[in-house]
Parts: sequence; structure tokens; C-alpha cells
Amino acid sequence: MDKVNYTLLCDFYELTMSNGYFENGMKDKTVYFDVFFRRVPDGGGFAIAAGLEQVIEYVKNLHFDDDDIEFLKSKNIFSNGFLDYLRTFRFHGDIWALPEGTPVFPREPIMTVRGNAIEAQLIETFVLLTLNHQSLIATKASRIVRAAGGRAVSEFGSRRAQGADGAVFGARASYIAGCNGTACVLADEKYGVPSSGTMAHSWVQMFDTEYEAFETYCKTYSKSATLLVDTYNVLKSGVPNAIRAFDSVYGKDNKEVSLAIRLDSGDIAYLSRKARKMLDDAGYSHCKIVASNSLDEYIIRDLINQDAKIDIFGVGERLITSKSEPVFGGVYKLAAVEDENGNIIPRIKISENPEKITYPHFKKLYRLYEKESGKAAADLLCVHDEEPDFTKPYELFDPDYTWKRKTLTDYIAKELQVRIFENGNCVYTSPDINEIRKYCAEQLETLWEEVTRFENPHNYYVDLSQKLWDIKKALLEKNGK
Amino acid sequence: MDKVNYTLLCDFYELTMSNGYFENGMKDKTVYFDVFFRRVPDGGGFAIAAGLEQVIEYVKNLHFDDDDIEFLKSKNIFSNGFLDYLRTFRFHGDIWALPEGTPVFPREPIMTVRGNAIEAQLIETFVLLTLNHQSLIATKASRIVRAAGGRAVSEFGSRRAQGADGAVFGARASYIAGCNGTACVLADEKYGVPSSGTMAHSWVQMFDTEYEAFETYCKTYSKSATLLVDTYNVLKSGVPNAIRAFDSVYGKDNKEVSLAIRLDSGDIAYLSRKARKMLDDAGYSHCKIVASNSLDEYIIRDLINQDAKIDIFGVGERLITSKSEPVFGGVYKLAAVEDENGNIIPRIKISENPEKITYPHFKKLYRLYEKESGKAAADLLCVHDEEPDFTKPYELFDPDYTWKRKTLTDYIAKELQVRIFENGNCVYTSPDINEIRKYCAEQLETLWEEVTRFENPHNYYVDLSQKLWDIKKALLEKNGK
Repeated sequence: MDKVNYTLLCDFYELTMSNGYFENGMKDKTVYFDVFFRRVPDGGGFAIAAGLEQVIEYVKNLHFDDDDIEFLKSKNIFSNGFLDYLRTFRFHGDIWALPEGTPVFPREPIMTVRGNAIEAQLIETFVLLTLNHQSLIATKASRIVRAAGGRAVSEFGSRRAQGADGAVFGARASYIAGCNGTACVLADEKYGVPSSGTMAHSWVQMFDTEYEAFETYCKTYSKSATLLVDTYNVLKSGVPNAIRAFDSVYGKDNKEVSLAIRLDSGDIAYLSRKARKMLDDAGYSHCKIVASNSLDEYIIRDLINQDAKIDIFGVGERLITSKSEPVFGGVYKLAAVEDENGNIIPRIKISENPEKITYPHFKKLYRLYEKESGKAAADLLCVHDEEPDFTKPYELFDPDYTWKRKTLTDYIAKELQVRIFENGNCVYTSPDINEIRKYCAEQLETLWEEVTRFENPHNYYVDLSQKLWDIKKALLEKNGK
Repeated sequence: MDKVNYTLLCDFYELTMSNGYFENGMKDKTVYFDVFFRRVPDGGGFAIAAGLEQVIEYVKNLHFDDDDIEFLKSKNIFSNGFLDYLRTFRFHGDIWALPEGTPVFPREPIMTVRGNAIEAQLIETFVLLTLNHQSLIATKASRIVRAAGGRAVSEFGSRRAQGADGAVFGARASYIAGCNGTACVLADEKYGVPSSGTMAHSWVQMFDTEYEAFETYCKTYSKSATLLVDTYNVLKSGVPNAIRAFDSVYGKDNKEVSLAIRLDSGDIAYLSRKARKMLDDAGYSHCKIVASNSLDEYIIRDLINQDAKIDIFGVGERLITSKSEPVFGGVYKLAAVEDENGNIIPRIKISENPEKITYPHFKKLYRLYEKESGKAAADLLCVHDEEPDFTKPYELFDPDYTWKRKTLTDYIAKELQVRIFENGNCVYTSPDINEIRKYCAEQLETLWEEVTRFENPHNYYVDLSQKLWDIKKALLEKNGK
């Protein structure tokens, strides 16, 4: 997109806290924040991390314009010293993150930020909204694509998106997670998500007859035509008129042209079976059937169970807003601070609810794959300076139920977070979107079906190293829990 | 926001249809489209129209850059003639719309577009996504504000918004509908939505003790402080430390400073009552209590029923995404076309579902207010050139149940849509956001409580003139229904 300065897209408290750090001699204190979530939307077993590329653009562009300073000054609560500091403020910290398209589990750090108190605090809101939004849509899209069982899924939801970014970045996230394209042209131009589309009901209504509308369309487009057949009556009028138009313009023997009809209302399962037969009988077995109209993973699965003859699913509002669960609850929590000597002091956030207690410290995250199957067996969270010996069998234990233990023997371990910023310099190049999409598909292949199923997925192991677990326990005891 | 060219934020089919109109001599055909919705989210009785200002900016800025043309050319399906046409394309049509903040009912035209086939078609996607998004959030915010019964509601949801626009324009829509402000700084800078905020848990965690965190904050801000009291334990630690900090820094007799505490977890009803008593006993009856944590209209109503002592509700994810129903189903439907002589020919969209059948023709919309009560009695949809005689008693009839009739005697009628664009020129100035907010509040006052309640609201009358009803009936009969 054209560059927009989103530096002030932050919660006001990021600024009051920053001013407070500045005024109280804490601005150069080095702190560590983790981005993580606690629960997978829709009761799923994992999420897909997405949005990193937009976070990178934001952090690179982070600065306060003169207008911003004037605006903040008008609030009459920030010190002149702080406002002057903001004039030349840039991000000089470090960021590690999971590559986009990585399957991620609750409480794992999708991103870790190390920086001074002000820079690390200021970016909270935008980092969260970006990762939350795109991870939400990627996770939903992955479910829908899996439900479609190899049939194509196109993202059609721009008009129901929650704002322009919702449409464009929702299309991007959907594509990363396996959709084959979008209706959104801007997502194609700016982010390389393949766009396509042919006609709305208004096209059909603009002509005196449906047949004239179809024939005119086919005459205009020689390589491909998807005709919307439900403006009047699918089986009595739409499909017969589509066949007549195909006959008249292309002929049934022309297999070069890419033909389809689209069903957008009514009983899609029934209509698709009937339409399929009519098309086949007329010699158009190469004509595909596109279905749309309030689809999601559950309806798609039902349609397939009913033997609906659908080649391509167009999914709109229930994907672009993740309608069944439109919030991805990623949070941004302090994990550690450095003392004057550069020692990293872990911090914990206590809660009455044990699941809300954070994993303290500056950490690293490994995924352990079984060599034989290639499948992911468990993830392991360690303290940043641990070097686990992965040449030996590794005993994992569940951090909540420590009696649950599992020993891995024939495995390989891969560190998941990659370095994105180093002292404020971006040291990472976002892969091409098709690379991200391919990586995501490959990573999904490493998950057992028990983890990817929709109902009661297996609780994937995310284990803590003994050292990290001990630190957490000590902090809990110190805080009287 | 900084100007972004959203011309290509359209569904691909807007372009294939436009190219089709261009290639088939239909580009100068004049058409009329209505934006309307069929169902109010959350089972409510009405929606709040919002987003017009952003549609105006978009339409004014509508143009294809050279990059856009090159991109479209690369698709190899658009004619050179069409691409050349797009190079100098601007919107030259007419737009009428409801002012932002207007309560609106199902099937009423929120916006009507008259233009040539291409310009009217192209703007569909962006117009819908903008009106859908902001009307969705305004409608939700209005419910939440009404539930709060005069207590302040602040929008806190940026981090859970579906993209940056979701955050900024969601804050804008929330304010229009009655929220008293937002946490989103950019929404303040760019759109005048008052922003505020003070501290996160990370502020408290950055200090060795909670008391030190509170005292430091109070010393930094002499005019106002809202202390977050749930990092450790609200009643044992948070509130006592807040009182100590207030005592130490401001003193209980300083009524100039605006004090508050914020509860963000736990049993808010219980904690707020206990905290209220502790504050009152300590001489801080002027200290307000802010509550946040997954609030919506239902939880707020429950809290109030439980006599929770809350002065300000901070509402996040359930407002900024309209979580319980995150889609506003506005559609864009062809209502009429002009023939060669400029006669307006009504068009209808048929559906198996009677509620999905459109109201044909170029229309105008009146709201009829009872003089005595000042309340809205019904809306009336007429054909554009009708001049109903509102000096006489007016007999309304329900378009679906025509035996339901009602005669209004002492009333005034007000036309609701205003002219926004005339021959491509914007002839409307968006009011200041505070004016819009005030207008919205005034308009809400004209609705009977039966219409505004949450459960089973009264079905407000939106009646058709006899002429419009006859036209619809004739079109239905012509189409064999």
C-alpha cells in the first residue's frame, strides 16, 4: 500500500507510559516483550502466524512527523523533553519472529521484541493488531481450505471486510493459508494475490434477457467465462442459457476456453448435482461449478458430504471477518528486563487464572520433528542461552501436568523464531508471497491429523525446558502463589 | 489518513463487467444502484448509518494511476480501448445518501448512486465495505452506549481490530454513535475522536513494587491519573496502593485532579462495589472506577443490574469487531436504468425468498414524525418524482401486509437522503464529527423505546407509496411471480 505513517496508531497509554519512562530516568532500560495468544479460534488445534511483513514495514517507517508532535503537544500532558525526544525517535531494538505461515500453538512467542522501554512499549498496539488480524484470517482460511479437501477456495469477501485493510490484508492472509486467490484487485496489485472474477447479478439485469447477458459476456471474453446462473431460476433458465451461450460462442469441442457457472443462492448441493448433469449431458464436462453464498468450513464439509458437485468455493463474509470467531486474542506481555549490568531479569504476570500466567524470560522456541514420519512431535521453549543437546534422546514434560513425560529418540530440532531486526536494522527479507504460501503448506504437512482436525483436536505438546520451568516456579513462589 | 488510492480496492468482476459494458456500447447507459441491508445485526430494531465521509473521499480521489493501468494490462483480458478509457476515468455521477448518524431500517436506501454503467459499477466494493464496516460498528456502539445508561463508554479495541482501518474508523464510528472517546491516538489526530489512556500492566511490572509504579505515575501527571489496580490483587494490594499514592501525591482534598482506578479482570461487579467503599472511606468519593475486560452491551447491563459501581466502561474487542455479529450485510443492487430518451425504467431483483426481492426504481425516502411527541412514526419510500401531500392526513400501509394500515394526522415529513455528488462534483460538506455525534443522539431521541430495545424490538414501519407498490407488483407479475 502507499506508505501511511501509522506511528500514532497506538493506544494513548503507550504514550503516557513512554512519557513516564522518559521523565523518570527509565527510558534506556532494556526490556523484552513477547507476543502470544492463549486460545486457538474456533476450538482449533493451532493457528497460522501471519502479518510479519506489515509489522516490518511499520517498524521501518516508525517516526513522528512534526504534525504528530504538534498534536501531542496540544494534549498538554507530555513534557517538552519527551516531545523533543520523539522528534528523532526511531526503532533501535531487536525483533525475532516466527516466519509467516508457521503453525503456532497457544503461549508460544509469535514475536519477541527487545528494546528500550519506550520503543518496545510504543509498538505494542500496531504489532498486535497486525499479527492478530492476519493470523486470525490465515487460521480461518486454513480451516476452510482443509474442509474443501483439495478443491479450490477463492476469497470473495472484500465488501464485508472491516475496512480497507481488512479486505486487502485479509486476502493476503487467506492466500498464505492456502486459498487459491481473491476477488480483491488491490490485493493482487500490491501483494501478488491472484485475483479473478467475472459478473454480478447487475450484469445480467442490465440486459433484456439472461441469454443476451451470457452471450454478450462470452463474446467479450474468449479465454474464460464464469456465468452467474441464479438471477432468475438456476435450472429452468440459468444453466440452459449458459449452455446455449457456450454452444453459440465457443462450441463444446473448444477445450481451450476455461468455462464455469456460479451458483450463489438456493440449495447448492441439489442445484450443483442437477447442473453438473445438465452440463455433462450437453458436452460440457469441462465446465466447472463455482459455489458461493455464506460458506464456511462447516457448510463446505456438509456440501461435500452431500456429494455436491462443486469445483471451486467462493468464500466471503465468513472468511474475511472470521465470522464465527472474529477476534484473535494475541497479547503483548513483558517477559524480562535488563539490570544496569546487562543481566536479564525474568518478569512474570500473575493471574488468578493459571492459564493467564505468562512464561517469563527471554526465550527461544524449538520444534522437534520425528525423523521417520517427518511429523512435528512437540515444541520446546527454553531460556535464550540454553543449548539443549539434541544429539541425545530428549525427555519432554508437560508444563501444566509435569508427570506427563515423553522421550523422543530419533528426531531433529529446528529453532522457529528468526531474527528480524538487529539494533534497529532489518536483517530479514520477507519471502515472496508464493514462497510463504508454499512454506505454510509444507509446515501443515508436518502436523498430525489429530492436531489439524476441527473437533477436539489433540493438545499438541509445548514443553518448557527444566531451566525455564524452574525459573517460572521460583517467580511464582516469590510472588506468593 | 494519508491519501491512499483505493480505486483498485474493487472486486475483479467490477472490472470485467466494466470492460464488457465498454466493449458492447453500454458504457454510457445511465443506471441507478441502491445500498441497503436486509437485517439489523444482533436482532436490533435499527442500524446507524456511518462511513459516508470516507466514501466521499474515495469517490473524489477515484482514478487509475499509470501503475494501475499497467497492472490491468498485464492481465491480458481488458481491451486497449477500455484501458485508455480508464486513464482519464473520473466519477461524473450523482450520489444521494443518509447523513451519518441517521437511524436506518432494513431495505431503506442508505445511499443511491446514479451514473454511467462503468462508474456506478466500479465503486460498488469500496462503497459497500466502507458503509458496512462503519455502520456495523456504529450500530454496535449505540447498543453498548444505551446499555451503559448514561455512564461513559470508551472504545479500547485497536489491538483486536481487523486491520488498521478497522481500528481508526471503528473508533470514529463508535464516537459517532455515542462513545465518549477512544484509546486510539490516530483516530484522534486524524478524525477528532478524543483519545485518552494511562497505563498497562507492563507499567506496573517495570517497577519493583506496585506502590512505586503508582506513586511514580501520579508524580508524573498532576492533572489526572487512572491507576490499573489488578496486576497483583485488586483489594489487598491494588486499591490500597492507589489510595496511598493518591494520599502521598495529591491528597484527598485536591478535587482539581481527575482520579480513577481501572479494573481489568476478576468479578467486576463485586470488586467495583468493594473498591468503591474503600475509596469512599478513604475520602476519594471523587475517584472514578473504570471497568474493562471483554465487555459488551449484555455484560454491561448485567453489571448495572448487579449494582456494580462503575463510572466508565472501556470496551475493546467486542465493540471494535462487533464480535457477536461481525458482518453488516449491506448490498448494492440495480434499481433502474435509463432508456435512450432518459426515461427511468425500474429494475427488480427476483428471489425465491420474498425478503430478498428488491424495491425497484429511483426512490426517495421520508421520515414522518408525530408533531406532539416528536417521535418517528414511520418511514415512507416513494418514487423519485412523487410529491406526497403531507398537509393532509397520510394513510400508510405495510408493503408486506397491505391490510395493515395506519393514518397519520398531526405529523411532519422530512426527506432523509441528501445530495452528495452532482455530476461528479461533491456538493456536500461532511459535518464536524461532534456535529455528527450530536445529530445521531438527537435522531435516537426520536425513536420510541419499543424500537430501540434489545429484545424483540417493534418492527418499525417502512411503507411504500401506492405508486411504488404498484410498480413493484407489476414487475413481479411480469417476471412471473
